[in-house]
Amino acid sequence: MTLIDNGLEILSQDQCDALLRQGAVGRVAVTVAALPAIFPVNYAVLDGDIVFLTGDGTKLRAALVRAVVAFEVDHIDPGPPSGWSVMAVGVAEEITDPGDLRAVADLGLRPFAGGDRSHVVRIRPEFVSGRRIT
Amino acid sequence: MTLIDNGLEILSQDQCDALLRQGAVGRVAVTVAALPAIFPVNYAVLDGDIVFLTGDGTKLRAALVRAVVAFEVDHIDPGPPSGWSVMAVGVAEEITDPGDLRAVADLGLRPFAGGDRSHVVRIRPEFVSGRRIT
Repeated sequence: MTLIDNGLEILSQDQCDALLRQGAVGRVAVTVAALPAIFPVNYAVLDGDIVFLTGDGTKLRAALVRAVVAFEVDHIDPGPPSGWSVMAVGVAEEITDPGDLRAVADLGLRPFAGGDRSHVVRIRPEFVSGRRIT
Repeated sequence: MTLIDNGLEILSQDQCDALLRQGAVGRVAVTVAALPAIFPVNYAVLDGDIVFLTGDGTKLRAALVRAVVAFEVDHIDPGPPSGWSVMAVGVAEEITDPGDLRAVADLGLRPFAGGDRSHVVRIRPEFVSGRRIT
């Protein structure tokens, strides 16, 4: 059975999980100084969690400490229009456990930008949803 | 002069404006039922405002009424890493003025997804910032 929401196909949990795992770049929405903000991040999936690297003292890191954030990944082609998007919402936290940090290092995740990005943030998805252009 | 922020080049206002105008798909971050959410939208720029179409009764539309939202567009290639992102923050409002609606129609903006997307939302950027991978 295919569920449609205003012209968009609603993806199953399994489809969402598979698309999250295949993505490389997503966006995190946080609140910084009472204003919404969106940051692109390159990421990986570890035990179902979204993990990415960030710097010391960045706005992003400050905003992420135990905050509920939205993470989104999509692939959309303008013409002819096709594509999908998956969103995960959950609490963000910094990974400090040495074993967990080793597991992240084993993923081969490297920051795309230079500068210091030695902190690892994990988002544990509480809600995951996805849509596909039909 | 090039400003660098943690390995990322800070783009000028003119560069940000040019990149906003060349994009086709961006993402809007809003708060829905006290939770952050990110929606991809295809958009155009009209007199410096970001405009896009949405449906009647969608969560997105409800969340957008006079809310301060973040809009982001980026183009990021994983390997070798290169790309840019531009974020605009401002108040979102529905366009109802007939002249403004005609101006939007003249842009040729068409929703990528099916379903009803006959409402036009405008974000008037108050703050615009951009970064590029160096």
